[in-house]
Amino acid sequence: MIDYQSRRQKLYDVMAREGIALLVIEDTEGRRDPALRWFSGHPQDALLYLSVDKKSLLVPWDINMALLYGKADMVIPYGEFERRPVAAAKGAAEKLKVPPGSKIEIPPVVPYPLFLDYVGSLTDYDIICRTEGLHGEVEKLRAVKDEEEILIYRKAAAITNEIIGLLEKNVRTGKIRTELDAALFIEAAARRRGCDGTGFTTLAAGPERSFGIHAFPPYTAAPFAGKGLSILDFGLKYAGYTTDVTLTFARDPSPAQEKLLNLVEKAYKLALSMVCNGAGARDIARAVDSLFGKSKKTMPHGLGHGIGLEEHESPSIRSRGDNSWVLCPGMVFTLEPGLYDPIHGGCRLENDILLADSGLEVLTEAKIFRL
Amino acid sequence: MIDYQSRRQKLYDVMAREGIALLVIEDTEGRRDPALRWFSGHPQDALLYLSVDKKSLLVPWDINMALLYGKADMVIPYGEFERRPVAAAKGAAEKLKVPPGSKIEIPPVVPYPLFLDYVGSLTDYDIICRTEGLHGEVEKLRAVKDEEEILIYRKAAAITNEIIGLLEKNVRTGKIRTELDAALFIEAAARRRGCDGTGFTTLAAGPERSFGIHAFPPYTAAPFAGKGLSILDFGLKYAGYTTDVTLTFARDPSPAQEKLLNLVEKAYKLALSMVCNGAGARDIARAVDSLFGKSKKTMPHGLGHGIGLEEHESPSIRSRGDNSWVLCPGMVFTLEPGLYDPIHGGCRLENDILLADSGLEVLTEAKIFRL
Repeated sequence: MIDYQSRRQKLYDVMAREGIALLVIEDTEGRRDPALRWFSGHPQDALLYLSVDKKSLLVPWDINMALLYGKADMVIPYGEFERRPVAAAKGAAEKLKVPPGSKIEIPPVVPYPLFLDYVGSLTDYDIICRTEGLHGEVEKLRAVKDEEEILIYRKAAAITNEIIGLLEKNVRTGKIRTELDAALFIEAAARRRGCDGTGFTTLAAGPERSFGIHAFPPYTAAPFAGKGLSILDFGLKYAGYTTDVTLTFARDPSPAQEKLLNLVEKAYKLALSMVCNGAGARDIARAVDSLFGKSKKTMPHGLGHGIGLEEHESPSIRSRGDNSWVLCPGMVFTLEPGLYDPIHGGCRLENDILLADSGLEVLTEAKIFRL
Repeated sequence: MIDYQSRRQKLYDVMAREGIALLVIEDTEGRRDPALRWFSGHPQDALLYLSVDKKSLLVPWDINMALLYGKADMVIPYGEFERRPVAAAKGAAEKLKVPPGSKIEIPPVVPYPLFLDYVGSLTDYDIICRTEGLHGEVEKLRAVKDEEEILIYRKAAAITNEIIGLLEKNVRTGKIRTELDAALFIEAAARRRGCDGTGFTTLAAGPERSFGIHAFPPYTAAPFAGKGLSILDFGLKYAGYTTDVTLTFARDPSPAQEKLLNLVEKAYKLALSMVCNGAGARDIARAVDSLFGKSKKTMPHGLGHGIGLEEHESPSIRSRGDNSWVLCPGMVFTLEPGLYDPIHGGCRLENDILLADSGLEVLTEAKIFRL
């Protein structure tokens, strides 16, 4: 049983410290924010208002859904606010008795024209919209998983591993011959084992299409796991949390393909060896960049990312200068070195890592399978 | 063969009229904009810069993908701009020789903090970010489909109709018994007929779950089309364009359920009868609201929406006061009246409508199926 009130309490403390009277969390089409679900249990399409007086107001699009899932002190359907975010914020400030003159923080992804609308309509309040504000604090809270979340991840990883085993078997026996076979096998196997579904659209790219980081379209009726390199990138969503793994199937690889495979495996091992409490995420990513650089190869994406209610969340494991994430216990993230060649195809190896108090634990069992 | 240059030409004319020297189009995780694909053919994850001097620059994440799909005058990988939107905009202004002092328009969904970054970094230019600006003009251009797009829709609708027929048959014969059966049947059937896939996650909600507007999770291993009301909402993506239909399966409906079904069918017919060149989209939606209101029912969502490269695009067919869309030839949109009851379940009937020069054409054949 998830204790949403105690999650909110963590934030109320930060709000008091920062002098923010009301925090606005939006989850809407085009601007998804799983913090909604994290704080309230309501899965999506709603606004959530948290006041420094420790009261929460949920404003859902679908009231039937909210009655089932939404855990908040008050629930008012969006329709009562003309389905407008600014009208709902005004209503929330009233219902939650936010004193005039105090600070209301809105999400950093609020578009500039909507920001102007907030400022123009809530003239009694000081509207705050900033990148490193309270929403960033929420991101930090969510980056460190609590015990319930880790239990969910162990279960999600166990199902993912079972399905990895079946995928390998079905590819080897020829039961999976197309990208479509692979992707639909995952969809069905996931749901039959109690998953919500997949965490994102499965990318299944046979030898003709594996050169792309993200194959487009994600999967087709084309052959899979024939001669050359095939990539299968998928995640299972269990109780809201997604895993994220990538398998590469290599059939009769050429010397150039074998070189890509070995380099990626080497990079993966190097990255894994550097994961520990206190490690700088950027340093790990840079070590991998440098390893690839020695072979005159470039990885066209980040080394990894946190996972959770979203496919991509904090910490970021990238080499960019502004990445200041430091690994600490409770973080769950991917490591996914990959190399892509327009002629030879692509190769990626991705697993989910839990940094526990006792050290790192590789939760998933993705591999480069040589056929 | 799509003529991207002539699509861009339409916009260059508007830019000249409005005095905008450079237009920025962004398609990135969290801020998708299919205008990228519409103007350049590049499917996703890129920036596109259009200059009033009739030059286009594509800045893709994945250069291999761009070499395959991207049609623009220049292509420069995002990596060359440190993967930062503001650095890329600076580079684009230079490459496209945008004179200092001129206006650069960025998307209206640019978050306020990023807006500040643009303004602070591109000090030689006047940064414009507004709701009813050029991006709105692009939306209007995209709302009226050209001949190539209508050909694609005829093909997409034909496949959708074939699959609707098979779904009905498989439900009646008991081959489809679960939500999962229905959803995966669609995934496979779509791809085997040459579709890119589904246009959005299929919502399959059996009698226990059809009360929600958008079932959550979207589909599960639960029974489908048993006694009561089941909803199946899906779309097929063909050559980038998505259809969007909803079938309701009613097995042995109770009198209360029969009442919902009849009301929804009546609303659908009423809406259809009002569609014509020059009709106000809001008036149609209000007529349906009023019909439901007479039976003391409320529809908790809009009546319909444009479709195209996105699941939801213009025109909006809603009753909100600010909806000023007027229907005109070339528009392709849904009509989807629905009613939802926490006890009796939900019912929705949704088809795709083309308003052609010769009048309206119902492209798809979704129905309420009584079992």
